Amino acid sequence: MNADPGAGVALIEDETVPVSEARLPILDWGFLHSDATYDVAHVWRGRFFRLEDHLDRFFAGMEALRMRIPHDRDALRDRLQDLVAASGLREAYVEMICTRGQPRAGSRDPRTCTNRFLAFAVPFVWIADPAKQQTGLHLTISRMQRIPPASVDPAVKNYHWLDMVQALFEAYDRGGETAITVDGHGNVVEGPGFNLFMVRDGTLATPATGVLPGVTRRTVMELAQARGYAVQARPVGTEAVHAADEVFITSTAGGVMPVTTVDGRTIGDGSPGPVTRLLRDAYWALHDEPGYTLPVDYARARAEN
Amino acid sequence: MNADPGAGVALIEDETVPVSEARLPILDWGFLHSDATYDVAHVWRGRFFRLEDHLDRFFAGMEALRMRIPHDRDALRDRLQDLVAASGLREAYVEMICTRGQPRAGSRDPRTCTNRFLAFAVPFVWIADPAKQQTGLHLTISRMQRIPPASVDPAVKNYHWLDMVQALFEAYDRGGETAITVDGHGNVVEGPGFNLFMVRDGTLATPATGVLPGVTRRTVMELAQARGYAVQARPVGTEAVHAADEVFITSTAGGVMPVTTVDGRTIGDGSPGPVTRLLRDAYWALHDEPGYTLPVDYARARAEN
Repeated sequence: MNADPGAGVALIEDETVPVSEARLPILDWGFLHSDATYDVAHVWRGRFFRLEDHLDRFFAGMEALRMRIPHDRDALRDRLQDLVAASGLREAYVEMICTRGQPRAGSRDPRTCTNRFLAFAVPFVWIADPAKQQTGLHLTISRMQRIPPASVDPAVKNYHWLDMVQALFEAYDRGGETAITVDGHGNVVEGPGFNLFMVRDGTLATPATGVLPGVTRRTVMELAQARGYAVQARPVGTEAVHAADEVFITSTAGGVMPVTTVDGRTIGDGSPGPVTRLLRDAYWALHDEPGYTLPVDYARARAEN
Repeated sequence: MNADPGAGVALIEDETVPVSEARLPILDWGFLHSDATYDVAHVWRGRFFRLEDHLDRFFAGMEALRMRIPHDRDALRDRLQDLVAASGLREAYVEMICTRGQPRAGSRDPRTCTNRFLAFAVPFVWIADPAKQQTGLHLTISRMQRIPPASVDPAVKNYHWLDMVQALFEAYDRGGETAITVDGHGNVVEGPGFNLFMVRDGTLATPATGVLPGVTRRTVMELAQARGYAVQARPVGTEAVHAADEVFITSTAGGVMPVTTVDGRTIGDGSPGPVTRLLRDAYWALHDEPGYTLPVDYARARAEN
């Protein structure tokens, strides 16, 4: 490869290329109908975090959409390993994608498509970087309703984000830095790439339905419960968020990230709260645990070059 | 170009290429977040049909999504003319697309994106081809709810189609050939790329909300009214469709196409009805009217080669 692999690499049509050169045929329904599912794992200090959970969800999503890729689970894990090794990245954001592919010329029948697998590894992405996490995010509760589960199953990770992007623009207009969408009943659901938690009187709550069951969300629930906190997955109303002692968001793109204002109102004392900080530290500490991580064998790339 | 231009051509990054070679960078949010709007016009016997209506909608969609392309209306019309001329196609399906583009490295802020324009012209696409229109389509009313307007404005033509594709698979499973989705109140709304009309006792009805205001839909409404038919845009319940005298669908991809069974039940006498046939003939007759059409100047392509 001519370009700097540290800027990211992609695997497409069984070829590894710099991510800046990776392109999808425009007639693929993954683009023309957003007919695709994906997952994102991350690598931290040279180790994948909870990769098997991401693989579980990716294969379940493909099954739900009646898609298949030419790789079984072991082969997929191998490809992702190779990809990260080729990038040389010790901290990476690793996206695996399955698109419907392209129907036979003149046909609109998705059964005539051959599904396509692609993946890319780029430098780790933060919704809020470590500096921003010191002060906390400014969140806006959007008027946009997240696409409901009766239309698109949020457990099948998907690219249907026009509502999310509109919510972001709305947040910028209203002085926010990021946004969370709502359901039709006045409850918050999910933001662009993240789940939300609130803490009130030592109890955690996170929206139960209408959301992607995030791997970071699950990790935080496990960590909080192990430390004696009650965690409720239930409807979370807008007013409850405004009145919370602490609010934070969770995502593979950054882990556990404090929110210190919501709709311009200060949450708690305006700085990241103790439960948030405890869980953030516990989350990152897990990245050294062999049971949660898989080391990348960077020697693979050297051996191949 | 080496490939047969008659198989279709695309305009991407200001270059005209065979459509089979046209590719989108995978990091474009048009793919990764389906953050795009588009429109499709068609060319019949060498003339664009109602191109200005499609341009109106395309520019309105971009404005709603806060996108812009480097071409004004006249320049865009010119590009589409050039594209069809380069293809040599006398009957073409012409798609114009604006994607969000790619944010600055490491950013998730759509304001850092430069929007991207692309387009392609391929041989005319039929949801039901003329032979199939003789017998009529088998339609299934899906259990899938179309993404509601509170989440994604259907008037901004978009690629959020996972509900549509799931509805298609459901239709195939149930013996149908195509599908229509429903809203949350037992009414049909729209199918993959088409609007629906029903005829009962000489009155036409078509869903009023939750649908793309299609150009073919509008054309049919105008043609029917000019011929003395009442046309109601209103909620259309599933049972009303089952009990209709005639059912047809409308789309740029095929015009006016009869439906002769719904959920396995025969509509009317099981053959395309008289109102459907009248409107289909009137629709195609409009394609010879100078007020509705714009001739493609195929000499442009010859002059350039």
